[in-house]
Amino acid sequence: MSDYDVLEIGGLDQWKDYAGGRAPGKRFIDAELPEQYIGMSANALAPGGESPFWHSHSQLEELYVFLAGQGQMAIGNDVVDVHAGTVVRVGQNVMRAWRALPDSTEDLRWLCIRAGGGPLAEVGKDGERDGDRPFPWAS
Amino acid sequence: MSDYDVLEIGGLDQWKDYAGGRAPGKRFIDAELPEQYIGMSANALAPGGESPFWHSHSQLEELYVFLAGQGQMAIGNDVVDVHAGTVVRVGQNVMRAWRALPDSTEDLRWLCIRAGGGPLAEVGKDGERDGDRPFPWAS
Repeated sequence: MSDYDVLEIGGLDQWKDYAGGRAPGKRFIDAELPEQYIGMSANALAPGGESPFWHSHSQLEELYVFLAGQGQMAIGNDVVDVHAGTVVRVGQNVMRAWRALPDSTEDLRWLCIRAGGGPLAEVGKDGERDGDRPFPWAS
Repeated sequence: MSDYDVLEIGGLDQWKDYAGGRAPGKRFIDAELPEQYIGMSANALAPGGESPFWHSHSQLEELYVFLAGQGQMAIGNDVVDVHAGTVVRVGQNVMRAWRALPDSTEDLRWLCIRAGGGPLAEVGKDGERDGDRPFPWAS
């Protein structure tokens, strides 16, 4: 039998604050498919929403692919505007956070893809959080 | 300076048969961003179009994330219907091909993500093609 798997997650307009996920607004595809190397989450955030904390990874590379809505990513000391078609690659040991703009025309929706130099089960627990650092858009 | 990069590829409705790519309809994001571990292409295929050949990988895992249109993937001896929200993970040494249905309401559009157990530059040249095998939807 061929090694493949299929999962239906719904079209973009069906991505919502998924109940039961490990984080609000985030659906970990790799919790539902037996992924070896590629981790991926489908994400939706209502206008005005923001990530609960900054985080970084010591081993994983992450690729954020924005598909709808308007938002911002804070990356190190920079702020990057994001919208449909913005692809952001983030390397190791870089703190990042994000928000949907308060006047975003719809939910900010994106895929977050992650991989490191080995099987996801070995390299995927390398995260660090900073819950104390304020976001650059905080008043 | 923080290790990150930004690329604008346009919203879904702007994904077309990209001129100048390594394959028609396919835009290799990793040819434009310095990706370490994650390879990704943005793909568009007009109704009735199909992949030029079957292919497989000996090391890479691939994740196909369909975002618009209606199509089919041939995977080994199976045929899987795909549309917005279908995620297909394909493991090693599995031959695959795809098509946009002739009556697809729009171009079939998807991301193809790939990663293996090491840096992309080391594991990313593991492809095999079969240009002689007919597609299951051929008349």
